[in-house]
Formats: sequence, C-alpha cells, structure tokens
Amino acid sequence: MLSKNQVKYLHSLRLGKFRELNRVFIAEGIKLVEDLLESHFRIQIIYGTHDWIESHQRVLASGEYVIQEVTEEELKKISSLVTPNEVLVVAGYPAPDIPAPDSMGKIILLLDRIQDPGNLGTIIRTADWFGISHVFCSPDTVDFYNPKVIQATMGSFCRVSIHHTDFKQLLAGLSDSWHIYGTISDGENIYKTELHFPAAIVIGNESRGISDEYLPLMTHRLGIPSWSKGADSLNAAIAAGIICSEFSRRLGS
Amino acid sequence: MLSKNQVKYLHSLRLGKFRELNRVFIAEGIKLVEDLLESHFRIQIIYGTHDWIESHQRVLASGEYVIQEVTEEELKKISSLVTPNEVLVVAGYPAPDIPAPDSMGKIILLLDRIQDPGNLGTIIRTADWFGISHVFCSPDTVDFYNPKVIQATMGSFCRVSIHHTDFKQLLAGLSDSWHIYGTISDGENIYKTELHFPAAIVIGNESRGISDEYLPLMTHRLGIPSWSKGADSLNAAIAAGIICSEFSRRLGS
Repeated sequence: MLSKNQVKYLHSLRLGKFRELNRVFIAEGIKLVEDLLESHFRIQIIYGTHDWIESHQRVLASGEYVIQEVTEEELKKISSLVTPNEVLVVAGYPAPDIPAPDSMGKIILLLDRIQDPGNLGTIIRTADWFGISHVFCSPDTVDFYNPKVIQATMGSFCRVSIHHTDFKQLLAGLSDSWHIYGTISDGENIYKTELHFPAAIVIGNESRGISDEYLPLMTHRLGIPSWSKGADSLNAAIAAGIICSEFSRRLGS
Repeated sequence: MLSKNQVKYLHSLRLGKFRELNRVFIAEGIKLVEDLLESHFRIQIIYGTHDWIESHQRVLASGEYVIQEVTEEELKKISSLVTPNEVLVVAGYPAPDIPAPDSMGKIILLLDRIQDPGNLGTIIRTADWFGISHVFCSPDTVDFYNPKVIQATMGSFCRVSIHHTDFKQLLAGLSDSWHIYGTISDGENIYKTELHFPAAIVIGNESRGISDEYLPLMTHRLGIPSWSKGADSLNAAIAAGIICSEFSRRLGS
C-alpha cells in the first residue's frame, strides 16, 4: 500500500525545485516506461498495477529498481494524467554530458527559451523522428523534466539527448564547418535557399523569437514563406517540424 | 457590473451542449478579438476593460454588439485563460455553408477525428499560414468552438472556413480532377512522389489514423519518412504542418 509520505513525495516532484533537489523525474504510461526500460536512464522506483507487473516479469527480473504494486485507485492518486495508464516510474537525471561536436550527427537543434511544455515535448518527438540525436535548450527554456514535457515526447526523450546549456559557449565550441541557422520570420525562403551541413538550427521563443544576444551568432537566417493575409506566425513546434522536415529532405535525397 | 447570471451563462458556454443550444462561442484576448472584429463573424457581446474599450472607440462605434465594461477582477471570473487579456467576446456561429468545389482553392484539409483541441487549433493556424481556406472536420472531431481550439488558432479561424461534415458525401461531391491524399505511416515517401493539384489532404486521428471507412476513398497514400530507431509516429499537428509545407512548396515553386 502507498504511504502518505510516498504520495507527498511523488506530488512534490511535479515542481521543478523538488526534481532538482532529488535529481529525479516522473514518467508514466505503458509506452514511455517500456522506452525507459530499454534506455540508459536509471529507473529508481516502478509503481505498476498487478496486471502490468505480471506481464513484465521477464524484463523486470534484471533491473535494480524497487517495484511496488499499486491499485488503480492508488495510481490515480499519484498520476498527473487524466487517464492513468497502468504504470508510473521515478527515474534519475542522467549525468550532464556535452557531446563532442564531431559526434553529434549532421543536424542539431537549439531551442531558445521555448516556454510551453507541450511544444518542447513535441519538438523532441519530432527530432527523434528525423534522427536528430542532440537537442540543446537555453537556460531559460521550460524544464525538460516537467511531466508535461516528458509525456509529450511519447518516449522520444529516451533516444534524443537533451542538454541545458549556454548557446554562446556551445556555438563557440563548434568548428567552422558548422552552419548556424536562425529561424526568423523575414529570413530567406527555406524552400529556395541552399542548405549546408552540419547544421545547427536555432528555434526561438513562441512570441519573442530568437534572443538579441544570439542573433549575431547566426550564419544564416531562414524563414517559412506564408500565403496568409493575416497570420502573424506559426506555432513554434510546427515551425520546428517544417524546418526539420526540409533539412532531412535535402540530406536524404 | 457583471450579474451572477451573466457569469453563469458564460461558464455554461465552456460546454459543447450549451454552445450548440445558443449557437454562440467565446473568444478571448486582444489579437483574437481584433481578428474577429475584422471578420464576417457576428459578435454579440464584448466584455472589455476600461482601457481596451477606450483604445477601440473608433472600431466599436460601427458595431451592432453590446459593449460591457468589466474590471480585471470580473474578467478573471469569466475567462478560461491563466492570464486574461483585456477582452472577451461572445460571437454567433456562422451559417453552415459548404462551398462549391471549384471555389475552394488548390488545397483543402480534411481532419478525421482529431481529438486534441490544441492540435485542431494549431492545424487551423497552420492552414491559414499556407493560404488554405477550407478545413473540413469529420463529425466526431473535437468541437471547433471549444475555447481551447479557438484560442490555439491565434485568430486564424477568422480567415479559414471550418466545416463539420461527412467525408463520404464531401468526397463524392468533388470532381475527378481532385486528388485525395491520405497520410499513412507506410504511405509513399512524400518527398519523392509527385504531388497533384487540386489536392484534398486527409489527416487521421492522433492514435488511430484514418478511419477504415474512409481509407478506400484515398486516391494516394503519403507518408513522412523517419530516421528514428524507435519513434512510432509524429504528433498529428506536426504531421499536418509538414504535409502542408511540402504541398505549398511544390505549388509555389
């Protein structure tokens, strides 16, 4: 049975300061937990329903985590989801690790102050789809371990490395072979301009775009042309999706 | 001053059945209301702060709506937003109107059972960006007048006509010159296949895709290739964004 203290602890992890203090986060649901079990993340505790634990005996046998059976009622108490889905885990933050520039692949994403958890999660999911392995977030981007971000990734955070870092330092560390693309409303038409690799693509804040301090660091400025008579902008995750698609199309063909 | 009955009425409009009964919906915030004031929608009541009404005197002079001044406190009571933004309006549903196929432009979107209000709103915003004027929703798509949908469109619903309709009937009414594109995970690589216009693009439900009853009606099946080792799918709005982008690119260049 779940103790009051366990419930209190799990609820506290919805807040960034308690996640940071304990260096753990929560992930929920069958798909996400299966992805986590196959990943490099260290799971600490699994809260699973009787049926979920029964059907995962083989996988669970080799783990070093605590497994606690919970009823549907108990799961509801600790879940942030409208419809809790059989299992919830507490996992540790991975060790911070900035990869060497030549091991990052041909495309990396830099997210500058993205504020909406759903947008951040969706962008990570999209990066995964296009085989982008490293996503960098500016220090004032929404916390990646926010449960809404984790859930919106649909498990993609297990395959994409996410780093919170200062962009000036990051970009200074890249060799001259890298091209730094800023996405800006009046940038060059992305469909018609030549795209170069390796590419670091910078996506700006939902309403304010890319910070003034980072703009001078862009070597290219890209825009998505509009046919609208009134729309001001695209949603940040949609813009990121279209840009990742266009870079992948050029790379792949 | 707002009466209790007014507050009760406005709260009731968060539910589809009361919107349907009164054939009105709510929209909030400076940008959305400015778009609405310029649109064909008939606004019934405007609840604005003193400052908002002051700065919109000229526009408001010509309207046939009721204007009621509210305090910030009162606006908080009737708003669905975390941060209410100066103005909230009640507007009427437009008359249902299925356009003639030859007046719909070169691309139309058909949304089959999209369930997430944020996704639907974002798709409408994206359609607007790419100059797509007509979006059709299957009868079991989330209600377009849901406040979360309206807000996520960022005002684009004023420039894109949205129709709830049966797709069989709609598709049967299109001439043979139309190409019906279904987006399906194992469809043809969208980057490499020829695209034809006029195009009706069908986007399926977030987890279940396009309904079995509509699949046989597709004349082409398109997919977005993935480079991932584990991602199952893209978010439905992201997939719609990438597909709209690719069709627009071909059309525009």
